[in-house]
Amino acid sequence: MSVPPRADWKVRGRRSELRRLPWLEVFRETVELPGGRLVDDFYTVEMQDFVVTAAFTVSGDVVVERLYRHGSRRVTWSLPAGYVHEGEEPLGSAMRELREETGYEADRWTAAGRFIVDGNRGCGWCHCFVAHGARRVGEPVSDDLADVEVSEMPWDRLLELLAAGEVTELASAAAIGLACVRLGDSG
Amino acid sequence: MSVPPRADWKVRGRRSELRRLPWLEVFRETVELPGGRLVDDFYTVEMQDFVVTAAFTVSGDVVVERLYRHGSRRVTWSLPAGYVHEGEEPLGSAMRELREETGYEADRWTAAGRFIVDGNRGCGWCHCFVAHGARRVGEPVSDDLADVEVSEMPWDRLLELLAAGEVTELASAAAIGLACVRLGDSG
Repeated sequence: MSVPPRADWKVRGRRSELRRLPWLEVFRETVELPGGRLVDDFYTVEMQDFVVTAAFTVSGDVVVERLYRHGSRRVTWSLPAGYVHEGEEPLGSAMRELREETGYEADRWTAAGRFIVDGNRGCGWCHCFVAHGARRVGEPVSDDLADVEVSEMPWDRLLELLAAGEVTELASAAAIGLACVRLGDSG
Repeated sequence: MSVPPRADWKVRGRRSELRRLPWLEVFRETVELPGGRLVDDFYTVEMQDFVVTAAFTVSGDVVVERLYRHGSRRVTWSLPAGYVHEGEEPLGSAMRELREETGYEADRWTAAGRFIVDGNRGCGWCHCFVAHGARRVGEPVSDDLADVEVSEMPWDRLLELLAAGEVTELASAAAIGLACVRLGDSG
């Protein structure tokens, strides 16, 4: 039977099981379900919030990166992304990461939503942005571990790479999709 | 400077720091970067792969769920999703989860890509599907912890809820976006 959600779960206990800041912290929670049932081994993971941006140039191309990502254990096409630093607003993080990673700045920024990375465990929030009027203003200054190759690409070419499995990260896929939703709005 | 990725990282050591199967396992890895630099505290997380499906009825509505999700700590609109069980192909998981969670079956299924949930740490793969010809064939039989309210909704209404911040999970946002990409293909 289809059952309306009655209320939020209540957290009755919470114990840190692994703390490796700033990267992650794992908690074992005791949660009380709406009917009163207790579940004493619900694991949640705190991870850093991050941003991802679909940035379009004036000619309508999109700023993309090619880099190795250890999560997927391979080189992938990605959109510019990075962690939200302490004290930053996500929009500020997105602007900083675009500049640092790619050497680009953009004129107009739109928030395309924030989403929890894992619906059960958390794993941080992903803040998605769409930017327009992007242009190269200097050299990238990123100190990321991975080498990053930056280029501009026609939007349809990125959609082809997405369909071909050459975009391997969920956040990039989401941001590409959300940009399509917005493009559909304005079209 | 924009630098082409030279090669994949090499894992020189890997130690389990927290093992809570089937939910998650956290590893501390020693990785060797292409230039030879060793990083001895790169954390990765193994979590269960899962599926998420944008399922359209013959009238073009989409099958949605409303449920509490502990990751975002609130009630949200979601697309049907669930874990890939041992020995299952993701398509089989998506069909099973749609049937179990919503009571629906669908005629035509298309894989919309698989994506690593966290580009740095892993956290499992999300397999996205788009299904057509969905129809209710019986009662949901899910044993999930959360109550799930199932309904059919016009696609544009779901896009409104997405824009309003009422879809809180990255996987659902991605699957909605990917369905838009595919709709754009065919339109």
